[in-house]
Amino acid sequence: MMAKSAKHDQLFIGIDGGGTKCRATIYSAERGVLGTGLGGPANPLHGFERALESIMLSTQLAMRDAGLKLEQVHELYAGAGLAGVNLPQLFDRITQWDHPFKQLFLTTDLHTACIGAHEGKDGAVIITGTGSCGFSIVSGKTCNLGGHGFAQGDKGSGAWMGLEAVKAVLESLDGLAEKTALSIVLQEHFQTKSAMGIAEQMAGQPSSAYAKLARFVLAEAERGDEVAIRIVQEGAGYISRLAHKLLANQPPRLAMIGGLAEPLQKWLDPQISARVEPAIQPPEMGAIYFAQHQLAQQQGELA
Amino acid sequence: MMAKSAKHDQLFIGIDGGGTKCRATIYSAERGVLGTGLGGPANPLHGFERALESIMLSTQLAMRDAGLKLEQVHELYAGAGLAGVNLPQLFDRITQWDHPFKQLFLTTDLHTACIGAHEGKDGAVIITGTGSCGFSIVSGKTCNLGGHGFAQGDKGSGAWMGLEAVKAVLESLDGLAEKTALSIVLQEHFQTKSAMGIAEQMAGQPSSAYAKLARFVLAEAERGDEVAIRIVQEGAGYISRLAHKLLANQPPRLAMIGGLAEPLQKWLDPQISARVEPAIQPPEMGAIYFAQHQLAQQQGELA
Repeated sequence: MMAKSAKHDQLFIGIDGGGTKCRATIYSAERGVLGTGLGGPANPLHGFERALESIMLSTQLAMRDAGLKLEQVHELYAGAGLAGVNLPQLFDRITQWDHPFKQLFLTTDLHTACIGAHEGKDGAVIITGTGSCGFSIVSGKTCNLGGHGFAQGDKGSGAWMGLEAVKAVLESLDGLAEKTALSIVLQEHFQTKSAMGIAEQMAGQPSSAYAKLARFVLAEAERGDEVAIRIVQEGAGYISRLAHKLLANQPPRLAMIGGLAEPLQKWLDPQISARVEPAIQPPEMGAIYFAQHQLAQQQGELA
Repeated sequence: MMAKSAKHDQLFIGIDGGGTKCRATIYSAERGVLGTGLGGPANPLHGFERALESIMLSTQLAMRDAGLKLEQVHELYAGAGLAGVNLPQLFDRITQWDHPFKQLFLTTDLHTACIGAHEGKDGAVIITGTGSCGFSIVSGKTCNLGGHGFAQGDKGSGAWMGLEAVKAVLESLDGLAEKTALSIVLQEHFQTKSAMGIAEQMAGQPSSAYAKLARFVLAEAERGDEVAIRIVQEGAGYISRLAHKLLANQPPRLAMIGGLAEPLQKWLDPQISARVEPAIQPPEMGAIYFAQHQLAQQQGELA
């Protein structure tokens, strides 16, 4: 009896670590969500120690929120979906981390996002935020598309849109391309009419700085600006191709998440937008399902 | 008499400092070129101290080549054209440098390239190497186009071409775009058939790493590869627009310099390629003309 009740009271923590923030949720199979916490950037590719700190901060905040004592961290089964760990080297480094959890089950943030979106069932997910990528799980087989990083990949993402907009305004200020409303809006944003002034402000900026410009592109496309429409259509065209490719794997559901998922919908191939369904659970819940599933497999193997 | 002979024997050093190397040439009006030296990267935007070191190394090598004693550096009138000093902040920092020359006359590398290309006379120049930009001087009025840096500008440059090729191969490996000879050549170059493998090798690489891929694009375009042709045509289209814009200022000559100047010629608008003439002197000689001109003006003002 004691063993069974202890098992029923198993505490899980789901961690979703991305380039700008880290979310943690504490969950018990009996009592549901007990608490949540938010930490800073947790992409180990862009700062390994920083990522571990963000994971621990979000963990501690979630534990406090759940009314747990900090030493109970040793009782938590952790599921973590982290950006960057598709690189085998980073996956191994995190695996070697002397973490405080009872056990740590690690996978990519894309994988846990997909598990969450479909509540652990098969499905496909497209993420369009600062970056862009696609993922599907069908009958245990996963497929990973895009997500090749700024500026060589991530087409249709916020950073890509911002970069295309900056390119367009620089050419227009040099008199080498048409000057439209988008160019004027960006000149106001940068408070300069000089191409070099804009180039200087954006030189060496990370993808997140370009992604902040995406809202101007989307707004001007709504208002009928030709250049903005061309950019949004090109980005949405890529996302539609990505979606078709994922649907070829026959996932029962397709979800889109990330800051650009909603504004991009109307620009997608109608066949695709008709297929898009809501994500049922957030990625951190996907990380909990992942840990539960891995733990059950492990216990099955031991039994 | 002594003053006049001293003036005739004035020693100049012309310095051309770019992102990958720094060239110096020592020149006397009476005896012509006395020696040359080559140093490392000298773009103060990408490393201020490094740029000053490269300038001094190329100077010392040129002095040794010219058979001068190192303490004679104080006798040299220096003209320097440096990348990055179009940014007022960097221009000021270099101006405040406690340099060893008798005098230092500073301008951009584009300006000295243009002066050199036309032996100090009016003209326009387009540089297509790792980056791309255009410059003209007509009746004392200068015009500066492009050169906004990787990846938001520098269209038609080697880095831009390489980036477009990487984008194309990544999309083709995801099955989202046609797979052509260019894709196969790049897979061989990166020794992987995996999109993530290529993305990983290029992640965070500087523009020079992308520029190294331009030769594959140009070679495959020559062989008729559709994707490579589309990239080269788009880049050459931009360079042609840049050239038309410079020619609108009525420069008597137009020169193209940089590693891509020759291979790009045949892809340009025929009106433009018909106008392209050789650069008469290299940028470091342009820097010498610049120093001579500035010195003459100064002496004219003093007289």
